[in-house]
Amino acid sequence: MRAVDYIIKKRNGEKLQEQDIKELIAGYVSGDIPDYQISAFLMAVFFQGLDFEETWQLTNAMIASGIRFDFPEIEGIKVDKHSTGGVGDKVSLLLAPIAAACGCKIPMMSGRGLGHTGGTLDKLESVPGYRVFLTEGEVRKILADDGYVMMGQTEDFVPADKRMYALRDVTGTVESIPLITSSIMSKKIAEGSNALVLDLKCGSGAFMKNIDDAKKLAEYIVGTAKAAGLKIKVVISDMDQPLGRTIGNYNELLESAAALQGNGDERLMELTYRLAGWMIVLSEKAATMEEAVDMAKKAVASGEAFKLFLQNIEHQDGDIDYVINPKKLYKYSKTIYAQKNGYIEEINSYDVGIASIYIGCGRRTKEDTIDHYAGIEVLKKVGDSVVKDEPIFTLFYNEGDIETAQKLLEKSIVISDNKPKKNEIIYEEI
Amino acid sequence: MRAVDYIIKKRNGEKLQEQDIKELIAGYVSGDIPDYQISAFLMAVFFQGLDFEETWQLTNAMIASGIRFDFPEIEGIKVDKHSTGGVGDKVSLLLAPIAAACGCKIPMMSGRGLGHTGGTLDKLESVPGYRVFLTEGEVRKILADDGYVMMGQTEDFVPADKRMYALRDVTGTVESIPLITSSIMSKKIAEGSNALVLDLKCGSGAFMKNIDDAKKLAEYIVGTAKAAGLKIKVVISDMDQPLGRTIGNYNELLESAAALQGNGDERLMELTYRLAGWMIVLSEKAATMEEAVDMAKKAVASGEAFKLFLQNIEHQDGDIDYVINPKKLYKYSKTIYAQKNGYIEEINSYDVGIASIYIGCGRRTKEDTIDHYAGIEVLKKVGDSVVKDEPIFTLFYNEGDIETAQKLLEKSIVISDNKPKKNEIIYEEI
Repeated sequence: MRAVDYIIKKRNGEKLQEQDIKELIAGYVSGDIPDYQISAFLMAVFFQGLDFEETWQLTNAMIASGIRFDFPEIEGIKVDKHSTGGVGDKVSLLLAPIAAACGCKIPMMSGRGLGHTGGTLDKLESVPGYRVFLTEGEVRKILADDGYVMMGQTEDFVPADKRMYALRDVTGTVESIPLITSSIMSKKIAEGSNALVLDLKCGSGAFMKNIDDAKKLAEYIVGTAKAAGLKIKVVISDMDQPLGRTIGNYNELLESAAALQGNGDERLMELTYRLAGWMIVLSEKAATMEEAVDMAKKAVASGEAFKLFLQNIEHQDGDIDYVINPKKLYKYSKTIYAQKNGYIEEINSYDVGIASIYIGCGRRTKEDTIDHYAGIEVLKKVGDSVVKDEPIFTLFYNEGDIETAQKLLEKSIVISDNKPKKNEIIYEEI
Repeated sequence: MRAVDYIIKKRNGEKLQEQDIKELIAGYVSGDIPDYQISAFLMAVFFQGLDFEETWQLTNAMIASGIRFDFPEIEGIKVDKHSTGGVGDKVSLLLAPIAAACGCKIPMMSGRGLGHTGGTLDKLESVPGYRVFLTEGEVRKILADDGYVMMGQTEDFVPADKRMYALRDVTGTVESIPLITSSIMSKKIAEGSNALVLDLKCGSGAFMKNIDDAKKLAEYIVGTAKAAGLKIKVVISDMDQPLGRTIGNYNELLESAAALQGNGDERLMELTYRLAGWMIVLSEKAATMEEAVDMAKKAVASGEAFKLFLQNIEHQDGDIDYVINPKKLYKYSKTIYAQKNGYIEEINSYDVGIASIYIGCGRRTKEDTIDHYAGIEVLKKVGDSVVKDEPIFTLFYNEGDIETAQKLLEKSIVISDNKPKKNEIIYEEI
């Protein structure tokens, strides 16, 4: 069959065969099938969907497009956590050393920030020298030594996903549950994990705005993981307000370091311990969730997790002086104040995320450079009381469109007269 | 807005603004918007549609992408006929000289065969020397002298359509009524016509297989023509059996010459006179259809139409000796026989069209060359009685996959015991 026949088949709502999907993806990666056919195919998938079987076959075909890691020298289960992306989401930075301290083995492939959300790689690279592109030998050695390794996606790692993701971004085909599923799962399986905890963000600062969409994605993720023989737990968590106290790269890294030393934000730690707990349970290092969370808390209290955090930064060539002795690497700061008395009813995380981009924390296009040292401190949470002219945000920056950022932050805050109901940090576990 | 925003807007089922469509098409033609964004947009249009207003704005944006003819030196209405494509459809060859003989002025832009259908340009080019690519000066002179001119689409004539059509062909986005409408209408308006008769084919050998789809397309065509200020008549005609007695290029040209000399197939002539009649009425050369058809018949009977036919071939550098003294330019012939007694219930035109391609009458890809002198003679019509081993088709050919052609032709024929109801050649006029 020709590529156009597969496009028409899916366009007409028919089920694709494994061989169809293999040919499409292999042809795309080899260059035989051009972008313009794949983008039409992706739009057909947007409208007609893929079932679990097709989604798993697509995932598998994407994995086959590049190298696939395997760590036979490391005994037992390799586990990872993935977040669908949020604002102020620094959980990976904390959770990897915590779970590693509890005996988990974590080959963690992370991404960069795009859109309104931040990325783990950008946060790590705020430490001068820190390298996320490692040789295979380095990956194996660091994983063995530290219990975790932080990696960026190289050109030969699931290249089908790399190309399809870039194409989806410019063709209006991002918001498709089977395509999101295969993009996430292909990378997690190719990185060599055999267990995965998915932090599925839901709310104003997430890609999934409502619980129904989040549940539908969870269902696809679980279905695909089962087909792949991957142990999986999905945690749907709140992204209706920024996570933790800071947004930005270096300041989120510093917040993570503080949290690992016992000074962590309550909601951030609750989520981190829960996700770490599932990693520990899936890795069979604890029999129950209670025991696992207890182990995770002890790893922080004992300083073991922070020790691993510093050790990993050194092993990946980062300058730990930037962690131990925090630097002030921004020129200006600005405070945003409450405009009336009352209770914080809402902090629209999408607006806060976009504001952070205007001061340089993120990229507007893939080619943009970022300012690792710009950031936002979030001084209030949903449910807190405020009085007029009380500070709500502090911005730290070197350059950028500060006026737009300020407007967005002011717009993000809704103050009401009545104390609102607080969202639990964890909505549901699947 | 960025191109992706327009794609998402349409994908979400929103109505595009005139400016949106202009930017998309202008950006596509200038090269700022790549094929992969347009193909995703076209697939979104496939699913979400365009309303009349958007369809007209798309048509208009496509016209603006290239040159647009205008014939102020020729007084009155310029009229054209367009067919959505069928098997054995040689009506343009006959109807242009007939209508011209009745005073119509016809700047006719035609296409080549693609898929299972033939193309007027290929039929004309079966006469050695015949040129369909003319200078603007030649177009004006021939139109003034002969009353009609036969043209091929040059690179600078509605280039947006040329590129989009090629893209639709390989991305599964051909079968969209608004896209078909804008493709047809942009060319007809840009060629300088201000009245159009559309022969909308319906049946096994047409792109529109059923009357409901045909009516929906007619509705779009009429809606767009009204927005464009173009006089329009849509005739939905039967394509459930091949039109006329022959399929191929040179043999359809010869059949047309014979028809202009009074020896035309009954159904072919009925349709031709009806379509010519509408052209005469729209051109205000006759007050009623009855009068118009009468004029058309007289143009044939008097030899005036055939005189113009020969004159046009000479003016466009064709060798009229090939018309006056038919040549035998094929090496082989083969007869296909009835396999039992009965009545012809069906001649599947799609199968017959594909069979003609296997002996060289058409192209399988745009790059293929064709054999102008291969062809099929259709000896029976739906409703005719046959006895076993009576000839139904004769094939003339030089090379090709004759076995496959034979199988397709045998498959195309359904013989039943009872005399079937004959389809009228004209279904409906809108």
